[in-house]
Amino acid sequence: MKERTFVLAPDSFKESMSAKEVCMAMEAGLRKIYPGASYIHVPMADGGEGTVQALVDASGGEIHYAQVAGPLGQPVTAAYGILGDGQTAAIEMASASGIGLVDKAERNPLVTTTYGTGELIQECLDRGIRRIIIGIGGSATNDGGAGMAEALGVRLLDEAGEPLPRGGGSLGRLARVDITSLDARLQQVQLIVACDVTNPLCGDEGASAVFGPQKGATPDMVQQLDTNLAHYAAVVKQQLHKDVRDLPGAGAAGGLGAGLMIFTQATLQKGIEMMIEYTGLREKLVEADFVFTGEGGIDFQTRLGKTPYGVARTAKASGKTVIALAGYIGEGIEPLYSEGIGAIFGIVPGASSLEKLLAEGPANVERTCENIARLLKLSEQD
Amino acid sequence: MKERTFVLAPDSFKESMSAKEVCMAMEAGLRKIYPGASYIHVPMADGGEGTVQALVDASGGEIHYAQVAGPLGQPVTAAYGILGDGQTAAIEMASASGIGLVDKAERNPLVTTTYGTGELIQECLDRGIRRIIIGIGGSATNDGGAGMAEALGVRLLDEAGEPLPRGGGSLGRLARVDITSLDARLQQVQLIVACDVTNPLCGDEGASAVFGPQKGATPDMVQQLDTNLAHYAAVVKQQLHKDVRDLPGAGAAGGLGAGLMIFTQATLQKGIEMMIEYTGLREKLVEADFVFTGEGGIDFQTRLGKTPYGVARTAKASGKTVIALAGYIGEGIEPLYSEGIGAIFGIVPGASSLEKLLAEGPANVERTCENIARLLKLSEQD
Repeated sequence: MKERTFVLAPDSFKESMSAKEVCMAMEAGLRKIYPGASYIHVPMADGGEGTVQALVDASGGEIHYAQVAGPLGQPVTAAYGILGDGQTAAIEMASASGIGLVDKAERNPLVTTTYGTGELIQECLDRGIRRIIIGIGGSATNDGGAGMAEALGVRLLDEAGEPLPRGGGSLGRLARVDITSLDARLQQVQLIVACDVTNPLCGDEGASAVFGPQKGATPDMVQQLDTNLAHYAAVVKQQLHKDVRDLPGAGAAGGLGAGLMIFTQATLQKGIEMMIEYTGLREKLVEADFVFTGEGGIDFQTRLGKTPYGVARTAKASGKTVIALAGYIGEGIEPLYSEGIGAIFGIVPGASSLEKLLAEGPANVERTCENIARLLKLSEQD
Repeated sequence: MKERTFVLAPDSFKESMSAKEVCMAMEAGLRKIYPGASYIHVPMADGGEGTVQALVDASGGEIHYAQVAGPLGQPVTAAYGILGDGQTAAIEMASASGIGLVDKAERNPLVTTTYGTGELIQECLDRGIRRIIIGIGGSATNDGGAGMAEALGVRLLDEAGEPLPRGGGSLGRLARVDITSLDARLQQVQLIVACDVTNPLCGDEGASAVFGPQKGATPDMVQQLDTNLAHYAAVVKQQLHKDVRDLPGAGAAGGLGAGLMIFTQATLQKGIEMMIEYTGLREKLVEADFVFTGEGGIDFQTRLGKTPYGVARTAKASGKTVIALAGYIGEGIEPLYSEGIGAIFGIVPGASSLEKLLAEGPANVERTCENIARLLKLSEQD
């Protein structure tokens, strides 16, 4: 029999293994039964946490670090990736402006800023990067990307011509947007925004109403933030002739989606689709006899753009079926079976604390893959 | 394609599902993918807890109850089985004389008795049973089966001709064994003792030294019990011309093994082999395309006569390979792969308390079997 080809395209198992580590554990298990097979690693992500690491791992790139301003202006060390081609960078806005960088008691979207995200983009420009992939999940901010813009040279001024304080709380006083100092290199740089959110900037479905509360906004603050973002959009429309207010995704990441569309050459793409495109998964699947995916958890939410779903749909389009692993299998997995996921296996060996399971993830993935391979081999011999 | 035949031969998942319930959950999962297949249920056990239930379920028999004397003489309600043929009974000694019937503080093998086990045998004789399968694991006793014998009419007398008090502590004063009133029906009844233990009655490997401490014996008590059992064996040898002291299994269940060999038509058989024989598993496997087994836990101990190992070895002899499920997968499973277990899958969906997992056992077996079936089906279509 011809040697088999396995394509391994898992997401990370959050707090346990990076996607690359999952690939390695999968191969270790499968290789015990199929020692002569080919194993193609395609570490995946869906635009959320782990996207930079997966892109770096998938491309043979490198992680870099920069000191930038955190959501409250405090210095934070943010990781970003320079991918294997040397011309593409990957950023997660959460590494500079994420909710995880602000203590719960201090969460206040009136003042949190995307300034650090802008600094990361600036850093990429300084490195001569031509393309920036930016994941925008997990923000602490509601500033419409104003801080990001400021870091890149935009001046947001009040009636008196003074720069506005940072944060979504001051945007109501915006009188003039001065882009004369906006970094000109942005014109030559493509920004791909990995964004699964389709919310507009304002209104009941807007950034403030939908995502504000989880960032610490009270109902009064939501009202103010929403009014401010509407004013910001109106000023931009009037002065820059860009109307982003109702565009799908404008409300992502507290309006950072809008800010990127206003001030950069940004296109929005669903996270998993960006990842599939960037990794060349579709082409790699052509030779696959077996396709494996997986994620920390698989449940009813998996269909909403998570990696196993994206991998499965892509595989299905090539007539392949995917075997999925999960550290946690929840309710509502049945619809996945008709979307290209052939089978789902838990990796957990028994009753155990989450802490222990997170630590033993690689061993559990390896054992499970070995046994799946045993079953496949068994069937071959029938 | 010809419709498939699945043979389902799991043990119980202790504290979660009987073996029959496991069969039903397995079929429910497999049937989703193989709706037209044949499913042969062979609920299994290994001579330990669950053996009566499995034999009853495998044969279409019934559970009965009898009030008998517990290990300390207290009344206990013990379950036993009348199997589908109406001529065979199944007893677990632990249901009458088990360690679980004695509070930890009261455990004292000087006084605990197998009398209740004898009463259960008596009950079977009264029902006209011709064959008794008896599982002897989990005893609280160290009386050499003296209590069992007494319940069946044997008189164990001291120098003064007085009956000895019950319990292993008094056997040192045994002067005469009077079997004139031993129930004569025992001559026509075959006793099959499911026994994996090969320990002799006395000495360093004997009942008292090896199993006494877990029944509450102090080192002094172990010494006394061992001396007493040696005396008991010597008296029996002299008066009844039966020499059981060094027979393998004589030391099982605090010497109940010896007692059964002395006073009944008993043969010892490994628990899983008894079960395989009684259920006709070997014959049922002939038609099997896929064989499933399972147990609450699978680990290095599984090779020591547990059900998944026995089923796998039997299947292997017919050129079949077994797929095993477990609620807990422990260390040291690798040797099982060369003994007929093709693959082992955990059923646990994620980090969870044991309590929740025990409650959700059927759903987890069903989901896991469905996904295994999906994988098998997938392979068929290659």
